[in-house]
Amino acid sequence: MPKLEINGVGIYYELDGTGEETIVFLNGIMMSTASWADFVEVYTRNGYRMLRVDFRDQGQSDKCLEKYNINQHVEDIRGLFDHLGLARVHMMGISYGGQVALLFALKYGARLKSLILANTTARLTNYLKAIGQAWDEAARTGEGEKFFKLAMPYIYSDRFYETHYDWLKEREKFFSQLLTKDWFDAYLRLSSSHGDYNILDQLGEIEVPTLVIGADKDIVTPLEEVKKIHEAIKNSLFIVLPEAGHASCYEKKDEFNAAILGFLALQKSKQNVVVP
Amino acid sequence: MPKLEINGVGIYYELDGTGEETIVFLNGIMMSTASWADFVEVYTRNGYRMLRVDFRDQGQSDKCLEKYNINQHVEDIRGLFDHLGLARVHMMGISYGGQVALLFALKYGARLKSLILANTTARLTNYLKAIGQAWDEAARTGEGEKFFKLAMPYIYSDRFYETHYDWLKEREKFFSQLLTKDWFDAYLRLSSSHGDYNILDQLGEIEVPTLVIGADKDIVTPLEEVKKIHEAIKNSLFIVLPEAGHASCYEKKDEFNAAILGFLALQKSKQNVVVP
Amino acid sequence: MPKLEINGVGIYYELDGTGEETIVFLNGIMMSTASWADFVEVYTRNGYRMLRVDFRDQGQSDKCLEKYNINQHVEDIRGLFDHLGLARVHMMGISYGGQVALLFALKYGARLKSLILANTTARLTNYLKAIGQAWDEAARTGEGEKFFKLAMPYIYSDRFYETHYDWLKEREKFFSQLLTKDWFDAYLRLSSSHGDYNILDQLGEIEVPTLVIGADKDIVTPLEEVKKIHEAIKNSLFIVLPEAGHASCYEKKDEFNAAILGFLALQKSKQNVVVP
Amino acid sequence: MPKLEINGVGIYYELDGTGEETIVFLNGIMMSTASWADFVEVYTRNGYRMLRVDFRDQGQSDKCLEKYNINQHVEDIRGLFDHLGLARVHMMGISYGGQVALLFALKYGARLKSLILANTTARLTNYLKAIGQAWDEAARTGEGEKFFKLAMPYIYSDRFYETHYDWLKEREKFFSQLLTKDWFDAYLRLSSSHGDYNILDQLGEIEVPTLVIGADKDIVTPLEEVKKIHEAIKNSLFIVLPEAGHASCYEKKDEFNAAILGFLALQKSKQNVVVP
Repeated sequence: MPKLEINGVGIYYELDGTGEETIVFLNGIMMSTASWADFVEVYTRNGYRMLRVDFRDQGQSDKCLEKYNINQHVEDIRGLFDHLGLARVHMMGISYGGQVALLFALKYGARLKSLILANTTARLTNYLKAIGQAWDEAARTGEGEKFFKLAMPYIYSDRFYETHYDWLKEREKFFSQLLTKDWFDAYLRLSSSHGDYNILDQLGEIEVPTLVIGADKDIVTPLEEVKKIHEAIKNSLFIVLPEAGHASCYEKKDEFNAAILGFLALQKSKQNVVVP
Repeated sequence: MPKLEINGVGIYYELDGTGEETIVFLNGIMMSTASWADFVEVYTRNGYRMLRVDFRDQGQSDKCLEKYNINQHVEDIRGLFDHLGLARVHMMGISYGGQVALLFALKYGARLKSLILANTTARLTNYLKAIGQAWDEAARTGEGEKFFKLAMPYIYSDRFYETHYDWLKEREKFFSQLLTKDWFDAYLRLSSSHGDYNILDQLGEIEVPTLVIGADKDIVTPLEEVKKIHEAIKNSLFIVLPEAGHASCYEKKDEFNAAILGFLALQKSKQNVVVP
Repeated sequence: MPKLEINGVGIYYELDGTGEETIVFLNGIMMSTASWADFVEVYTRNGYRMLRVDFRDQGQSDKCLEKYNINQHVEDIRGLFDHLGLARVHMMGISYGGQVALLFALKYGARLKSLILANTTARLTNYLKAIGQAWDEAARTGEGEKFFKLAMPYIYSDRFYETHYDWLKEREKFFSQLLTKDWFDAYLRLSSSHGDYNILDQLGEIEVPTLVIGADKDIVTPLEEVKKIHEAIKNSLFIVLPEAGHASCYEKKDEFNAAILGFLALQKSKQNVVVP
Repeated sequence: MPKLEINGVGIYYELDGTGEETIVFLNGIMMSTASWADFVEVYTRNGYRMLRVDFRDQGQSDKCLEKYNINQHVEDIRGLFDHLGLARVHMMGISYGGQVALLFALKYGARLKSLILANTTARLTNYLKAIGQAWDEAARTGEGEKFFKLAMPYIYSDRFYETHYDWLKEREKFFSQLLTKDWFDAYLRLSSSHGDYNILDQLGEIEVPTLVIGADKDIVTPLEEVKKIHEAIKNSLFIVLPEAGHASCYEKKDEFNAAILGFLALQKSKQNVVVP
């Protein structure tokens, strides 16, 4: 039961592997540490420690009845690093987790060895807000199956609906059971944490080596917006997962992992430069 | 009050203009004759008669408590043509209306001078079915504002949300008042009329001059599917409205009308060939 | 032999049709009045007079041994309009002809009823300059067949090479005979007329109703550049010809004509507004 | 001077690094072992041995005055592996080198641990043939500067021309000196080696873990063709380098290397599965 009291809230995490380098995975808004279960082996076998975290109001972390801003997670994560004695890590964030990762990089860049941003944005467009409102309405139905039916076509691509229909149907059933009133309430708090999130103009300050991953059928965080991050962060790398929607880590799991592992390997070879 | 009893149901229509050539506009599933109010002038001034029709369960046509298949509209439209003494017309259908237009062309091609298909498909992909189910769930809330919030981001593009946010907000208010329980019930009947709609293999039979219009940000009927129609119908023209979503006729009204008027003009110049 | 001495140079033109409204076609750099032979019927049957012109150093206009700037054509065209008594016209320009049309609109906008810009740009990117240099090198071979082989893959799309290979082979033969040393010399003068052409910042001044046509497989004047024109000219329309390269008027002739005829029809219906 | 007599021809190679796993780099048609000089460090530091090879008629391998088919390289490479005692390797091929890699995988799949295909195709479309003919004409000028001017805009993207113009100008100078009559003669032999290359229907036989890399501004081997390879090879991964042309390895060197290193890391973690 790895849970630590951080900033007054129990934050759940899982730490796997024994490597010297640690990679942290920050969840999308509907995800949890459990979402990455199938990803652990790949990273630990490649010699990384993998740290997964549930934000407050996610997964097995405590529910948080008070309102908070997305920046709160930044402090929670930093607190967790301090408790775990993690000086510097690689940080991967997808979607909502990518926004937290960007905010973390802006405030605590010195704690990062590298930054990996998948299917995320540096601002809320009107359209992204509208999708957020659609998901909020879907959450207010309080029913997992309805939520899935209303929200999923925004998240998975048409191609994935053709190739993985049974997987999606299974997922729908799973959601129907999993999503309780508590989950929906917590979701709505997470969803309302954005405030006026817009950090596009600040991204030039980020100096950490960065990989930006986009997907060409992502409706929620479309390539145009993802590309803005790549253009704003100096020397960042940019890779596109073709024929994938917003849930690129599921739709194109191997490509997603290959991009991250390759980026990490590239950093390693650059770090190794020995100045005589 | 132009309403005719066709196949036992009162079908509402509006006929404007005095030209020799008639162009029929078939509505998308959430639309009605009223949706085209701003389009009438353009076509009548260019010398066309414009016929707008509400399908059964749409707008001012009768509600229809019995189940029916999408093919029923084909018979209703043919019946209307007979009543109005329309021998051959140009037919434009968008989305659901485009599916009806395709079915009409397959069954009563001789009644068409030309066929214009906007943002429509020849089959239901898993993804299109999933969006349909999302809209059904949204309709079952029975509330116009919720329906709008849940369904609209599928229909309008992210670009349009940036450039026409106030217009969309007005529209949301308008929908909130307009959409009654009757409307939602009717919507659900229309939505369930598709059956196993898949006519991709039959499109080669269509011999009518055809224009296919797509939009590059259309999620509901994406360009890949629209293109399949173009490829299947011999000698069809294909025009793309850039930076537009599924509601291309609103997002890019001038381009939409230009494409149609130009296609009609082209047909006219070809018809005029006098064989001595 | 319709040729008029304008600014000291014999300018060849062809004027077809008897309508009240005149549409002028300005050639791409390798084209001539002859290139539009198959287009005349469509426009004259739709009630337009069609004016085709060979720029100096093109087709049957005089060769011009002195250096000149692309702006010279603007004066030549204006002179031709004066001679022919054309007060106001619709002007279509493709590629190089589109650049001339843009320059004309900036200087003599009052002479235009509308402006149609196909596959053209408002500036020379490094890449466009590089393609220009490739074509110059190709022209310096002085051999039509070599010129065609070296230059054409930039101009026609891969799709067109699949669907119209025989047409392209015929065209290669035709070019082999047509292109003489004089033609190549004239081509190189036209090619060097651009100077520091970059009018992107001035396009906001254009007030003429404008249609911008792009093609999604155009390498020479890619959609990104074409779109910049659309964004800079207020209220301009933007239509994309899908699966077409730079020679969109040949690859997608019907769609090209439909877009133009539709745009003209739309203008007409707006002009017709009678204020009582 | 690492050169081995293989099938009667001196084949030049360079072998760097000391790892257990070897990755072979097969050149594009205009490339040589020297083209990868800047890539060696990345792979050797990541623990790979890197084998670079000049095909016959490339770089420092012997010129080959007799005609040969592209399949000849497959035998040469296999011969080289035998001489060097390489049982099984990872093989990366770009463009022409990717075609050789595909042919190798079909014939000697058992010698491959994995296959990485960058910017390559499984068939010659009419368009690719036409570009090949353009490059042949360019080669027949026998002048490096002309060759560069005529051929490069096909190879580098418009974006790269904007961001790396000076680099390209340096490269043009370099080519001007490097390319001799011998080089051009050899180039023309390589270019004519394709015969009726079309192995699209055979790709289903490939069982080696495969990564397919494409670039979204690649004109020579466009994404549509690259994607066909991905679709034909079971379980292959597909990654797109955005805003890159045909020379993706230069335009997006870091992303190119990251994709490959990540794919190799992924394979490694899968190989490591210990069945108890």
